[in-house]
Amino acid sequence: MPLFKSYLRFSFFRRYRYALEVLVMSRYLIRWLLIATVVGVLAGSASALFLVLLEAATVYREANTFIIAFLPIAGFVIGWAYHNWGKTVEAGNNLLLQEIRQTSRSRISWLMAPLVMVTTVLTHLFGGSAGREGTAVQMGGALADQLTPLLKLRPRDRKIILICGISAGFASVFGTPLAGAVFGLEVFLLGQLRYNALLPSFLAAVIADAVTTAWGVGHTLYPTVSVPEWSLYTFGATVAAGVAFGLAARLFSWSSHAVAEIFKSRISYAPLRPVVGGVVLIFIVWLLGTTKYIGLGIPTIEASFQMPLPQYDFLLKIALTALTLGCGFKGGEVTPLFFIGATLGNALFPWLPLPLELLVAMGFVAVFAGAANTPLACTLMAIELFGAGCGMFAGLACVIAYLFSGHSGIYGGQVVSNSKHPYWGRDAGKKLTEL
Amino acid sequence: MPLFKSYLRFSFFRRYRYALEVLVMSRYLIRWLLIATVVGVLAGSASALFLVLLEAATVYREANTFIIAFLPIAGFVIGWAYHNWGKTVEAGNNLLLQEIRQTSRSRISWLMAPLVMVTTVLTHLFGGSAGREGTAVQMGGALADQLTPLLKLRPRDRKIILICGISAGFASVFGTPLAGAVFGLEVFLLGQLRYNALLPSFLAAVIADAVTTAWGVGHTLYPTVSVPEWSLYTFGATVAAGVAFGLAARLFSWSSHAVAEIFKSRISYAPLRPVVGGVVLIFIVWLLGTTKYIGLGIPTIEASFQMPLPQYDFLLKIALTALTLGCGFKGGEVTPLFFIGATLGNALFPWLPLPLELLVAMGFVAVFAGAANTPLACTLMAIELFGAGCGMFAGLACVIAYLFSGHSGIYGGQVVSNSKHPYWGRDAGKKLTEL
Repeated sequence: MPLFKSYLRFSFFRRYRYALEVLVMSRYLIRWLLIATVVGVLAGSASALFLVLLEAATVYREANTFIIAFLPIAGFVIGWAYHNWGKTVEAGNNLLLQEIRQTSRSRISWLMAPLVMVTTVLTHLFGGSAGREGTAVQMGGALADQLTPLLKLRPRDRKIILICGISAGFASVFGTPLAGAVFGLEVFLLGQLRYNALLPSFLAAVIADAVTTAWGVGHTLYPTVSVPEWSLYTFGATVAAGVAFGLAARLFSWSSHAVAEIFKSRISYAPLRPVVGGVVLIFIVWLLGTTKYIGLGIPTIEASFQMPLPQYDFLLKIALTALTLGCGFKGGEVTPLFFIGATLGNALFPWLPLPLELLVAMGFVAVFAGAANTPLACTLMAIELFGAGCGMFAGLACVIAYLFSGHSGIYGGQVVSNSKHPYWGRDAGKKLTEL
Repeated sequence: MPLFKSYLRFSFFRRYRYALEVLVMSRYLIRWLLIATVVGVLAGSASALFLVLLEAATVYREANTFIIAFLPIAGFVIGWAYHNWGKTVEAGNNLLLQEIRQTSRSRISWLMAPLVMVTTVLTHLFGGSAGREGTAVQMGGALADQLTPLLKLRPRDRKIILICGISAGFASVFGTPLAGAVFGLEVFLLGQLRYNALLPSFLAAVIADAVTTAWGVGHTLYPTVSVPEWSLYTFGATVAAGVAFGLAARLFSWSSHAVAEIFKSRISYAPLRPVVGGVVLIFIVWLLGTTKYIGLGIPTIEASFQMPLPQYDFLLKIALTALTLGCGFKGGEVTPLFFIGATLGNALFPWLPLPLELLVAMGFVAVFAGAANTPLACTLMAIELFGAGCGMFAGLACVIAYLFSGHSGIYGGQVVSNSKHPYWGRDAGKKLTEL
């Protein structure tokens, strides 16, 4: 009889198996549609507010450059705020990566979102050199994680919702939904892309981007880049440029970590670090006599598409950004990486047989690809910002930059899943900070 | 003293570590540049020859439709050729996937390349309904593997060169280098993308595509698709279309396997199967009174972007392709999947608030994404064929189709790495054919 029963069940199961599966998949789709909508609305709205504040801060600073004199004070406020309220969220992006890898029981404090937004805006207002993606990603991740206890999510689903938050934040702050969706999937492991969160991540990214747009907040528009035919010259130039971008990414990661290490080892009271860093920054800006290298640097990025710029621009931006973020100011690394890549591409123009716009566009994404170890997201970003034509040029540059940045990166919490080269095979399973 | 020595070595190593690493990476880059160039030239040239022959066969058949009467004879020749010479390479794409997963000692016979090329051209000449990608991928893989003993590659590197061959074949036969590069990385595992072969795969894809172009062989040009704003309607329609494309992909996979099973169980002498299948095909074509559903079907794909087509077109193409490939004719599945998706998108137009061109473009890639379980390659393909604008629409459709096709697919040798849904968690580690 048990045999007969199990046959019945088996036969029933086989016959209705596909109908059952469609039900299961529909439930999954509807569930994540709802969750991704909430995450997307939260992250997209946060990004919209952040972008508006950032724009206001930048405009005010450029109109009143004397405000840079108060950078050390702003630094103290930022350092003090994190020292007193932000101990648990100070790790920022790395905390998110850590929680995706090994979910703990404690959800990420909601404080992460306002803290990082306000301190990033302060950093920009008073003239630090920083970016936006770290802030948007942390806001997205922290806001998304507030749903974890509400929806009683299991650890498996908490990982997915954190990835959704990252994708949504990235997609909405740059206006690049595809790149955002893939970035969330790509960033937490080096050398591998897992599809567990594929659908939720895509849904959250597209919704967050649409929400930011619906708030009436736009993004910088870049030129559609036209490309030459493939030839030995253009191919060789693309490979050579990719190597240069990878080395620049490596230099940036190394500088950031080195500066942070120096400040940590020399100044034990954390809020004092950005004060000292701020003084040094003021001195450098005064020496240079220009605000070109602080803030987001969007005007320089735009100029790099049009005319030759000083060859050392990318080095100064590396130095100032490493100093700003290493001493404790807040913000992302990615817009400075765009700046570094764009100006480096610009500097390579006299040496390589590729159009200026294309070299700049390739550098824009490839230095970021090398520093964040996210070559596919960056290839998609190139397509979303500069058009489909440059896809394979940018893709090749990103992949080569990814190789040449080695096992280094701006996200120390990234874990090596597949080493970039058998030479580093023993790094597998370790965090970048442990190497 | 040993302590001192090891200190010396350590200090030496630390100081020159990065210089060493750059050397290691440069060697890796140059090595794979050389190998990928050879693979790219071989696969790109094979694709060029194949495309020219295919075009000639299609033109001849359309001008002399009586030739379809000889389909059963062509079927016998194909079946007999594989029965006598092709036993080891009959598994085709699945053999390649198998070798990438568990490298054996025996290299793939070079015979695979000419056998699959000639038999595919015969299939098209005499009126079977089939595609191109399987053929191009097998030619690329088989040609690439001839380098394995020449270069004395280790198993680790043999995997990479096989992936290169797949990427190169795919990239050159469709003129989509980015999609080809990612396809090779994405196809052998379901639910995961590993970066071990990232650089070699990109290099081989871009070189193969350039070589095919250099031979003067062009590809079908599709319209650049313009897209609407995101709204609740357009978003909902994209999701609904994605579900439909996923179910169609599932139906296609199921039909192909079912037809193949029936032929295998009823007719034990393999060369006889395509004879019987050919007779049935002739009868169906005679009943339909049109050659629209045989061959590649490019004219219908092009028409689907412009005007409403019969709603049942996609079902007929599923049936005829399943019959053609299931009974033993040769060719790929992908161009028929383009046909099925494009006509299904066309059929959905009256029901969904999206522009016709966009729905057709989404179907074009999304049914393929569901059937091949390669959502990222298909998203890139949409961008390469239809422009960057439709990227996120196509991406969302591909990702949803990927979910709704379940653990089924046209490549039975694909191994489930990350199940699409926890419901199927126990499938992990198994081949699709074992499910």
